[in-house]
This record gives sequence, structure tokens and C-alpha cells, in this order.
Amino acid sequence: MAKIKIGIIGLGTVGSGVYKSLQNFDNVEIVKIAVRNINKPRSVKLPREMLTDNPFDVVNNPEIDVIVELMGGVEPAWSYIETALKNGKHIVTANKELLAKKGEELFNLSEEHNCVVLYEAAIAGGIPIIMPIKTILAGNRINKIQAILNGTTNYILTKMDTDGASYEDVLKEAQTLGYAETDPTGDVEGFDAAYKITTLATIAFNSRIKFENVYREGITKLRAEDMKAANELGYKIKLIASATIDENNNADVRVHPMLVPQKTLLAHTDYVTNAVEMSGHPIGKIVLSGPGAGEFPTASSVIGDILAIAREFGTTDYLLPMMRCHHHSIAKPVNIHDTYNKYYLSIKAPNAIGVIAKIGTICANKNVSLSSILQKGVNENNTAVITVITEKCLERSIKEGVNELTNELPDCEVLSLIRVAE
Amino acid sequence: MAKIKIGIIGLGTVGSGVYKSLQNFDNVEIVKIAVRNINKPRSVKLPREMLTDNPFDVVNNPEIDVIVELMGGVEPAWSYIETALKNGKHIVTANKELLAKKGEELFNLSEEHNCVVLYEAAIAGGIPIIMPIKTILAGNRINKIQAILNGTTNYILTKMDTDGASYEDVLKEAQTLGYAETDPTGDVEGFDAAYKITTLATIAFNSRIKFENVYREGITKLRAEDMKAANELGYKIKLIASATIDENNNADVRVHPMLVPQKTLLAHTDYVTNAVEMSGHPIGKIVLSGPGAGEFPTASSVIGDILAIAREFGTTDYLLPMMRCHHHSIAKPVNIHDTYNKYYLSIKAPNAIGVIAKIGTICANKNVSLSSILQKGVNENNTAVITVITEKCLERSIKEGVNELTNELPDCEVLSLIRVAE
Repeated sequence: MAKIKIGIIGLGTVGSGVYKSLQNFDNVEIVKIAVRNINKPRSVKLPREMLTDNPFDVVNNPEIDVIVELMGGVEPAWSYIETALKNGKHIVTANKELLAKKGEELFNLSEEHNCVVLYEAAIAGGIPIIMPIKTILAGNRINKIQAILNGTTNYILTKMDTDGASYEDVLKEAQTLGYAETDPTGDVEGFDAAYKITTLATIAFNSRIKFENVYREGITKLRAEDMKAANELGYKIKLIASATIDENNNADVRVHPMLVPQKTLLAHTDYVTNAVEMSGHPIGKIVLSGPGAGEFPTASSVIGDILAIAREFGTTDYLLPMMRCHHHSIAKPVNIHDTYNKYYLSIKAPNAIGVIAKIGTICANKNVSLSSILQKGVNENNTAVITVITEKCLERSIKEGVNELTNELPDCEVLSLIRVAE
Repeated sequence: MAKIKIGIIGLGTVGSGVYKSLQNFDNVEIVKIAVRNINKPRSVKLPREMLTDNPFDVVNNPEIDVIVELMGGVEPAWSYIETALKNGKHIVTANKELLAKKGEELFNLSEEHNCVVLYEAAIAGGIPIIMPIKTILAGNRINKIQAILNGTTNYILTKMDTDGASYEDVLKEAQTLGYAETDPTGDVEGFDAAYKITTLATIAFNSRIKFENVYREGITKLRAEDMKAANELGYKIKLIASATIDENNNADVRVHPMLVPQKTLLAHTDYVTNAVEMSGHPIGKIVLSGPGAGEFPTASSVIGDILAIAREFGTTDYLLPMMRCHHHSIAKPVNIHDTYNKYYLSIKAPNAIGVIAKIGTICANKNVSLSSILQKGVNENNTAVITVITEKCLERSIKEGVNELTNELPDCEVLSLIRVAE
């Protein structure tokens, strides 16, 4: 094995984990690390002259073979990576947003300069997923993914489920514990999971998904009552990143809360654990589960990528042919309104008489079959909550039905409308 | 990509799946297939001149680059593979018994002739496991594996659990359905799982495990009553292949039934599905789950291996450096009597008076702490069944305790003694 020289951009939690773990490998040498503030006290001990506050010192350093980018965000990360590729350096990155938004440009540029771009850490943290898809699963036509890709929201949903607590209360607790950020938007509105499923589906389907075509709904409107009802019906509510592709290259890619059956492994994926369920031919269905974030799990993936480059470095003119990305096809987006799903509805009605008949009539007119309908007594204030589960039906129809119901019975309120996994 | 030429030995279920699936890849050409009976009617259509009943026609064919061995067993498979390696051919095999018993010889010979031996299909069928360990997880020190590696026994245990049926009844049903063989010994006595954990632990620990050092217990003595008791205690009973290694290279590798907590993914791995849980640093814990056998899942792994060779074939003098096996260290075996485990005991006693005191005294003398002890009334015939769960204690001590109990109280019978996972 040749010795390869590494430059790192970003020395936060993950960067420190990578730095520490790389000390065990004598075929890898860290040459330069770009940080925001050179004088900041750090948990890792390193020679001061290894640090720079100018990332261009790293990407333009002729000694360096591989750039490890751990700063995140599109700019200025893209400028550094672009320069690095033009300088013929291989890239290892954990930058899910950059991959989702600039993936096509990134991989075209890297092929142009015969460089490898690896990004195992960007999707599902420590779970081996990108490299397995590109290597041992390469003989498959994967056509479906259902995944839990965001640890923060899964932590919140697990706590809401086990403690019966509200979203707001659990979010506050998660922020105190450091599981959620002060501004939690990126996680709780599903952006983080949407970045990840964009790239994951692109790789698995071998057809480019555009981030702007990914439908996205967060978890902020979920109620403790929904978690309870889901349990009673044999489900758990999870923020599911899903993607399917048909034989005509139509891709339905989305992130939203879902009721998942309790007998599935996804339903048992709790707290900050992530899980990816993939189906295809000839393999059938597999589930890969593990820590989706954190210093050490992410370091495992970054180091795996670095070692893959190190092992072949200098032995061939075309490094890691299996790991290259050539997306000749671009998937056609499917609008969420045109998709078929099962739904859970929670409806508050002032007086149940006539309401169930009305729900039945509207659903029949919209071609929506009901799988179950349940009213549990009448509340103190003379209102009832009706829980409905539908068969698979058109999203457009269920939305129209909900509008019709609340137009015709203005006292009725649809408290929740959540899709249900099969 | 260069076009590579393939010879196949064995055209049973898996071979046919591989043959069919490979028709989709134009960089792979099947040249010759060795079968037992050329004239047998087959589900796959192929030119008769492609078949031979002499495997040496395949392994000595100078045109062939890669031998795909799908016949199983040590001999004569080893003779064919040995000849193929000496002829400089790469090997893809699903032969778990050969790997477990001849692994060291196999990998030494393959390195001597600069050939690659890949075997993803031999362990956990379609689940990506060997290639991920050798590539993206290469930066980890894996020190623990707990896995369900045999579909037949997992099917039987799942059915015993859900139907409350006896081992004998479910075995018969499984044989009728084709999930168990007429002579089920290889599966139900744990040989199949023991072959697999031997190789899996060797690769994951990077230290050779010898098959003769793997402790093995089958599922034939499990009772429907144990499944029921396990459920009540919050567990499921699974045939677990486990392996741990400590910092001094002592490896404890075994296959036996275990009570696993219901909150784990292993407990929810049902029917013919397999699952592998691995722990190490820096990654933490991951679980990989999927179909452990069958024509198509196994074909997925065989084809993944073939494509990995095809992608690098002709581009380098040393193909797939990451996938090579060099085991410089041999793990030191740990005797099962010297291991610490939690235990579930089911004890039949003619009259409960004094028995619980006796159990308590013997356990105390043997330094065995009890986690729970439960007697549910007294049966019609004036006997009681006492269920005990211990804390972690020495295997030697619990075995001595059981002997002492039945010596001192000859009317007592220990119906079951099963280890409990943490």
C-alpha cells in the first residue's frame, strides 16, 4: 500500500473523530487542516503548523492527494472542492447538502479530472450503504427505498411515543441534550432527510433525482394523540424518507411522517438510530441499520472511504472503478398529488350523528375505500374524535375529500392526515 | 470494462438464478458449466455444448477467467478450486463448509497465484456483509457479532413461537414446504450456522477462527413451553451465532439457542430472514438484515462478486486489493465452560416446598445471582414448574449447580437451560 497524504477542511466533532481514528493507520498521513479559528482550544492535540485558516492552503497544496471536506453547506465548500478536483485531488466528503444540490456538477467535474469522490458519511452516518450499493449490490435493479435518515426527528418521535409527550416539550428536551439544534428547521422540517434521500435514491436507482423534485413535510404538526392512536392500530409514526422508481424511470421521492406497521424493523428503529430498507431484484428486501450521526460512526465511514482510496492509490490509472458515478439518465418526477397511498385521518366532530355517514358518502364519491373507522365515545364538550384508515387511494382525491368534508360540515376539523406505509 | 469469461460448477437453484441474472450484463460471458447430469431437464434454457459433466473441463479451460463454484461440500469442490487457482483463475464461491474447513489453505494458495477468492453468497445469502467489512468498515476494530445465519431454524423457531407448536410438528411442516431438508441435521444441529460464523468472525476480527473451536448446540431440544415463557419474560428464542474477541486475541465463537430481548432487531428477524449485528470501534453497533438463502438473493451476492472482478479485470496487476485475505494471526479459543452468560432455566419439581430455597442456596454457593424466579401455581399432578433467570455467571458454575440440584433432589428435573443475550 502506498502512503497517501490527506488535507482536512473542518475540525468540528466529525473532523476530530477522523483525526483521532486516523492515527492508527500508517498508510495515511494528515498534512494540513483548515479550521475557522486557529487559536481555538481543541480536544485533539496536533502541531500548530498543521493548521491554517485558509482552506485554499489545503486544496492548493501540491503534496496532498485526498481532500476530506467536513465543513458542510454548499458555499464556500463547493469552491474548495471545485479547486481541489481541478488540482487532481480525490475527495471524501460528508456534505449531504452539497451532494443533493450540486451532485451532477460534482461528479462530472471529478470524472473530467479522473478523481474519485466518496461520500459514505453523508448518508446514514456509520451505516454501510453507498459502497455496498456500488459494489456487492451492483447486479441489482433497486426500485424501492424506505428509510429513517434523520436522528434528531427519530429521537423526538421515539420520545413522544414512549413518554406520551407533545412535540414542543420533547423538542425542548432534545435541544437541552444536544440532540436538536437551537434552530431545528433543517431537521424537523425534513430538509436533512431530503438531502440524503436525493443522493441515496440517485445512487440506488442509477438515475439522477433532482432535490427540487423531492416532496417534503416535517414532523412539527404531529400530536401526542396521533402517536397513541397509531399504537392502538398496530403502527408507529416515523419520519420516512422514501423513493420508488418504475420501469419508465418515473421516480416518486419524498420525506414525510408515516404510520409504519409494528412488525417491520423500521418501526423498531428508535432514538438516533437510522435504518434503510431497500428492495429490488434479484435480492428482494434488505434492511441496514445503525448510528446515523455522531463523531465516531461518521468517522468510521470517512475512514472507510479514505482507506479505499489508499489501498488502490498508485496501483492503477483508474482508481476504484466501481465507486465512480456516471448518471446518464435523469429520473422523471412524480407529483405527490398523483401518488397512491393509504391514509390515517383524525377528525374532530361536534356531534357524531350524521358525520360518519357524511365521511362515508364523500369517500365513496372520491373512490376512497375505508379500511377502518373508529369512534371512541363522546368527549366532555360533546365532540367526538373519529379515526379513519383508508385503503390505497389517490392523494388528490383524499385532499379533495377533506376539503369537501370541512366545507359541508364547518364544525368538523381534520386534526391529522398522515400517510400509512404498507 | 473488460469482458470476463466465466465457468460455473453446479447448476442447481442458485446456479440457475446466477445464469438467468447474468444474461443482463454484457461484460460477462458464461463459457462452460459443469453439471452432474447433462441430460436432466432444466428451468434455464442454454446451449447443450455449454454443459459438461466433468468439472475439470471447466477449471482447466484456458479461456475462462473466473470459476463460480456452487456445488458445496469440501470434496470434490476443493480439488476443483485448487486446480483452478493453480491455473490462475479467480474464484467466486458460495461454499460455506469449504471456507470454514479449508479457509487458510484456500487464501494462502490464492495469494500465491495472485488470484481473488470472493464468497459473499456463503454468509447470510443476499445480505451485504463480507464486502462491507473488507471495504467501508475497514477502519473499524470489530469485536462482537450476534447473528441469525440459518433460515431453516429461524423459520422453525418463528413458527413454534407464533403457533405454539412443538419442534417435531413444525419440522415436519417445514420439510413439506421445502424449508427443511429430509435429513435436517446440518441446519437444526447448528452446523450450517457454525460454518458461517467461523468465516464471518475470521473476516470481521481479522484473526483466524478454527471451525473445530466453535461451540455448537442445535434447536432440537427446545420446547413450545420455552417459547411461551420467553415471551412472557420479554424475550424471543433464536438460534444465535455469536463471536466476541478481546484485546488479547481470545475469541469466543459459538452457535446455540438464546433468549434475545424483544426490543432488539434480532428478536424481530422472523422466518427465513437472516440478520447480522456487529459492534466495534469507531462505528458502534450496526444491524444488517435480509434474505439468508434462496435462488435470487444468493444470486445477487454471486453476481456482485463477479461484477467486482469484472470492473477491475485487466486494469491492474493486483486485482481488488481490499478484498484479499491475509490472516497473520490465529485467534486463541475460549472454552464454553470458561464463559460468562445469563441463563434461563425451567425446573420441574414434584412439590415446590423447599425447592426454591434449595435453588437459592445452590446458586449462592456457586456465586450465581438470580435476576428473577417465578413459580406459577402447581400442576394437576402436583408438580410445579419454576422459571429462573440468572445474572451473568460462569458456565461451569451453572452446570455444576444443575448437577448438584438434581443430585440432591432427584425428583427435580431441569427441563431447559438456555443462555440469555444481554
